[in-house]
Amino acid sequence: MTTAAQPGPSSEVNAEQALFVAAVNEQLDDFLDRQRHLVSGVSADVAPLLDSIRTLVSGGKRMRALLAYWGFRAAGGAAQAEEAVQAGVALELFQAAALIHDDIIDRSATRRGRPSVHQSFTDLHQESGWMLDPERFGHAAGILTGDLCLSFSEEAFSEIGQATSSGTVARGIFNRMRAEVMAGQYLDILEEVAGPLRTVEGAAERARTVIRFKSAKYSTEHPLALGGAIAGAPQELLDGFSRFSLPLGEAFQLRDDELGVFGDPLTSGKPAGDDLREGKRTLLVAFMRELGTPDQVKSLEAALGHPELSDDDVARVRADMTACGALGAVEAEIDSLSTASFTALDALPISDLPRQALRSLAESAVQRSS
Amino acid sequence: MTTAAQPGPSSEVNAEQALFVAAVNEQLDDFLDRQRHLVSGVSADVAPLLDSIRTLVSGGKRMRALLAYWGFRAAGGAAQAEEAVQAGVALELFQAAALIHDDIIDRSATRRGRPSVHQSFTDLHQESGWMLDPERFGHAAGILTGDLCLSFSEEAFSEIGQATSSGTVARGIFNRMRAEVMAGQYLDILEEVAGPLRTVEGAAERARTVIRFKSAKYSTEHPLALGGAIAGAPQELLDGFSRFSLPLGEAFQLRDDELGVFGDPLTSGKPAGDDLREGKRTLLVAFMRELGTPDQVKSLEAALGHPELSDDDVARVRADMTACGALGAVEAEIDSLSTASFTALDALPISDLPRQALRSLAESAVQRSS
Repeated sequence: MTTAAQPGPSSEVNAEQALFVAAVNEQLDDFLDRQRHLVSGVSADVAPLLDSIRTLVSGGKRMRALLAYWGFRAAGGAAQAEEAVQAGVALELFQAAALIHDDIIDRSATRRGRPSVHQSFTDLHQESGWMLDPERFGHAAGILTGDLCLSFSEEAFSEIGQATSSGTVARGIFNRMRAEVMAGQYLDILEEVAGPLRTVEGAAERARTVIRFKSAKYSTEHPLALGGAIAGAPQELLDGFSRFSLPLGEAFQLRDDELGVFGDPLTSGKPAGDDLREGKRTLLVAFMRELGTPDQVKSLEAALGHPELSDDDVARVRADMTACGALGAVEAEIDSLSTASFTALDALPISDLPRQALRSLAESAVQRSS
Repeated sequence: MTTAAQPGPSSEVNAEQALFVAAVNEQLDDFLDRQRHLVSGVSADVAPLLDSIRTLVSGGKRMRALLAYWGFRAAGGAAQAEEAVQAGVALELFQAAALIHDDIIDRSATRRGRPSVHQSFTDLHQESGWMLDPERFGHAAGILTGDLCLSFSEEAFSEIGQATSSGTVARGIFNRMRAEVMAGQYLDILEEVAGPLRTVEGAAERARTVIRFKSAKYSTEHPLALGGAIAGAPQELLDGFSRFSLPLGEAFQLRDDELGVFGDPLTSGKPAGDDLREGKRTLLVAFMRELGTPDQVKSLEAALGHPELSDDDVARVRADMTACGALGAVEAEIDSLSTASFTALDALPISDLPRQALRSLAESAVQRSS
């Protein structure tokens, strides 16, 4: 990494960011208050849908909102502009919608150390002593809550007004972001079921495609570009943004995949090894299929997608991944992507404040432990 | 009903409608072609998402698109206006998105006589000989396809342009439509699990709330109002529209509920009695709990939500529903709602052509057998 000698974010960056995050949080609250009022007109019974969205969005690091903000500022937008705050609200709601459905798809009972949305409805069913199957009710309510949150995200985005109206660059990015995330998530679940039957040689490339579309683009590239586009950034600047943000997003997701196997459940808020139980065919898995001994690969394939995998099994796969060099190869790839990202950041024709802020965001994205 | 003596739709109505439906179909195809091109850039593996949406939207009676069209025309919009066609596209995509997730929630393997979207992915899994659980893959892919289709619906809606930009009446209706449908669907699944434990006295009212929000508003009221709002209808006209379209939508859904128990699977495209197996607590069920003998009610409660219910069991519940007067009571309610709807239609200050067209649409909505 090229960043070791760089200074941390200035107090000016921190102060501006704190104001922005407070404004996003306040506007998110106002938005959800309005929506709660509206759906309460349907029936008071509907309140849990809204409450579960509110609980979910109250967590999170606001990384996407902040990338949009600094993209906006880097392209010449004014500090704390209403449009940037509203873009942050829309992105956080989109992220929440994606997480709600992702947790159903992955059967994740927890999110950020709390019950995931569908699990909270399963719990509500059980606590209330209702009839029929609690888990099925939880999944159904989770699907509907995710749909509601996806609609909210778009509603918040449209409320930005002129800068996101039909035909604008920002609207195009928002549309592309949604379609690409869903396509990428499909490739992810497809690889879980079809990957074992496909070539080992192509596995790394397929894992990279999943990372790019399922995560990198919507976690970093699209939010930064959205903020820039709303401030009227020329295409050249948006291209420069991508050279920084796409490798950053890929490194971010590789770190996430690593944490999905090696992470500490206390800091990640998810059970250790869940990605293995889920059968996720990450780059780590692809590298292990290339680098592992036949016995290691056989034991990996037996573990993947096995919901009852014990902590001992997980520990064994971890040891194999380390021993065969797959973990090291992923670390090397994270380093190389980070270097490319920070180099591109240095080359961006933007002022000091957003550059410092983006560097600091990028560092936390690739160095995080949760 | 007050319509027996009314003439059928004129050839002028039919000709104009045929042109409009052809334009909607063409624009839907173009829209999905563009999207298929975009997601194919992610990976060719993603094509089945788009293809399943296309198959689903190629069916259907275009009732929502047509209501929007005649709302637009009744409010003074020009024949075959681009905005009305695009509103039709957005509504058909929204309907498709709702159906995709609804079929997952209801575990419906068929839709319009073909495999439902999630079932088509389960089938793809099995035909391809992939690993892990086919049904789970189908549900996950169905969730993602529904999300994609929901995003498409909004994208198509925004493309209408100025008339649907932020702050417009049309945008407000679109936002409200989405939130109310999802809230109504939640009340529907909530009633399945909580209904048996709630008061019999309130059951009919709760069933009416579900009907209104889950179906009536988005099937008839909101599409008609959307078309009107896009053409610039004053609020007074939109209120008049609602007096016609809301009872119509309620009658439409009551007919649908009736077909869910009494319908012929050959014409409805769904297995007979599926709503009973699903445990749907419709107005029919609420009336039966009020009107049935204790034995009939007990046998109904034993049948509801029982996935293995035999055709004989379904036939027995049907006979009980008829014998105790519940079916008759629903028929009476459909008649009374239809009368209110047609009376309100007669009172609308609109020209002859849209009035004829709306009457014809209303007749098919409440008299349909599928």
